[in-house]
Amino acid sequence: VPDPLPSWNAGVAKTSIVNFVQRVTTPGASFVPLEKRVAVFDNDGTLWPEQPLPTELLFMLSRIRALAPQHPQWRGEQPFESVIVGDVKALAASGKRGFAALATAAGTGMTTAQFDASAKAWLATATNTKLHCLYVRCTYRPMIEVLDYLRANGFTSYIVSGGTNDFIRAFAYDACKIPPNRVIGSTVETKYEMTPDGAVLVRLAKIGFVDDGPGKPEAIQREIGIRPIAAFGNSDGDRQMLEWTAAGQPALMVVVHHTDAVREYAYDRASKLAKLDLLLDEATAKNWTW
Amino acid sequence: VPDPLPSWNAGVAKTSIVNFVQRVTTPGASFVPLEKRVAVFDNDGTLWPEQPLPTELLFMLSRIRALAPQHPQWRGEQPFESVIVGDVKALAASGKRGFAALATAAGTGMTTAQFDASAKAWLATATNTKLHCLYVRCTYRPMIEVLDYLRANGFTSYIVSGGTNDFIRAFAYDACKIPPNRVIGSTVETKYEMTPDGAVLVRLAKIGFVDDGPGKPEAIQREIGIRPIAAFGNSDGDRQMLEWTAAGQPALMVVVHHTDAVREYAYDRASKLAKLDLLLDEATAKNWTW
Repeated sequence: VPDPLPSWNAGVAKTSIVNFVQRVTTPGASFVPLEKRVAVFDNDGTLWPEQPLPTELLFMLSRIRALAPQHPQWRGEQPFESVIVGDVKALAASGKRGFAALATAAGTGMTTAQFDASAKAWLATATNTKLHCLYVRCTYRPMIEVLDYLRANGFTSYIVSGGTNDFIRAFAYDACKIPPNRVIGSTVETKYEMTPDGAVLVRLAKIGFVDDGPGKPEAIQREIGIRPIAAFGNSDGDRQMLEWTAAGQPALMVVVHHTDAVREYAYDRASKLAKLDLLLDEATAKNWTW
Repeated sequence: VPDPLPSWNAGVAKTSIVNFVQRVTTPGASFVPLEKRVAVFDNDGTLWPEQPLPTELLFMLSRIRALAPQHPQWRGEQPFESVIVGDVKALAASGKRGFAALATAAGTGMTTAQFDASAKAWLATATNTKLHCLYVRCTYRPMIEVLDYLRANGFTSYIVSGGTNDFIRAFAYDACKIPPNRVIGSTVETKYEMTPDGAVLVRLAKIGFVDDGPGKPEAIQREIGIRPIAAFGNSDGDRQMLEWTAAGQPALMVVVHHTDAVREYAYDRASKLAKLDLLLDEATAKNWTW
């Protein structure tokens, strides 16, 4: 049998994933039927990089800069000012609320189809300058191997991300074979309108749902309605998703810990954008995989 | 080749469904790849009866009656008063808002797992007295044939219902082979809590989203992210779902019209709970299938 996870170093993490998949697919006490083999993956920092900044944020920044001349009031107003003058530190300090404000300003007042087209146009050329590749080609090979391995073993995998659902859908199938109907993300509210060209959905300047922290298990229950048996994350925003998974049996909880500053990025407890602190403690205490 | 829809009378409706499926599965201009063969079905009145009252409402009524002694303030307050005294007319007049109030009172303040267990316990014995069968066995045979036919042709079918997602999930797989992750419904908000026994989601006394009318295309985009190519409904609450489907190509829009008072129920424009009026006009004008 060929190694299903050839990019993984031999060790506890690889062994625990392979052992888990063998247990739930082998008749016996831990067998899980196909329809319950649900796995959930955080996206930024788990399937692809979130450094130097999350990809969706970079997309928004490019749109905010393009829209700035039409919004003079953005000068002097954070997080917009930081984007216009290129102050990455101030931008990072604006945190999740700043992210939401930028998402609203950059991606609303247009139809869902227009947003999808604008995201795909940007993704077609946008490049990570450290890794020298298109963002959609920057996914982590070990994680793509896990997705393929789970798929081959009858799992249905979802992305459950703090990013917005329609942005993730613009690349998820191309980047890691996750189709739109298996993407759960943060949302902006939409408004249905009938036009002479037919029905459209207009993206409103109103955050619908923030899919982070306790929002992740809430969204998993609301949209999937099946408790996952495997969950993969990399920051404290994924903690409750792993806890919700751990409350069932059997269950596999995996934490991606970024420790390779040469080939990728190294960060954990001190990160402003994606802190891995409480989750690292919990994973250690509960003997989760990391 | 055996007839895929043996319960359907020969006629325009049957022909249009079969022709559509053949067109989208045959190489050529109208071919639709597997991942885009998405179909959406209303539930109450489309897959199973909604008369004399929608099944979820009957479930709620039985719970409201059981809870009434603990809520003396419900006497004199609609829609609760109508449930306690059995005034079906007043109950029907309370409409969708009344339904929401009952849903909140009957199905919240408990965990999602407890709600699921209470719904399944009720469904195990609750019976439609006119049709003389368990509600979960009251699905329409012609519609089950359509679901089977679409499945056999590579479609992924979703329920998109004004009912609440977790109630529908309690029967949908048993009743019509729709798994929990393909159920989109109205929601109550939940709150994540860590308990000594592990993580739980508590259902709050707060309506999250009403999946009706324009809410249906909004929910389809938010949760599926793929425009359906086929949509089935039976009341004005399904109109925008069919319009949203019709805005793409190819597209099949089907309206179930209840005209058989002997074997089932007959109702349309005058119904208080599930009016089929504007949708019937639109289906006629646009040559949709009904």
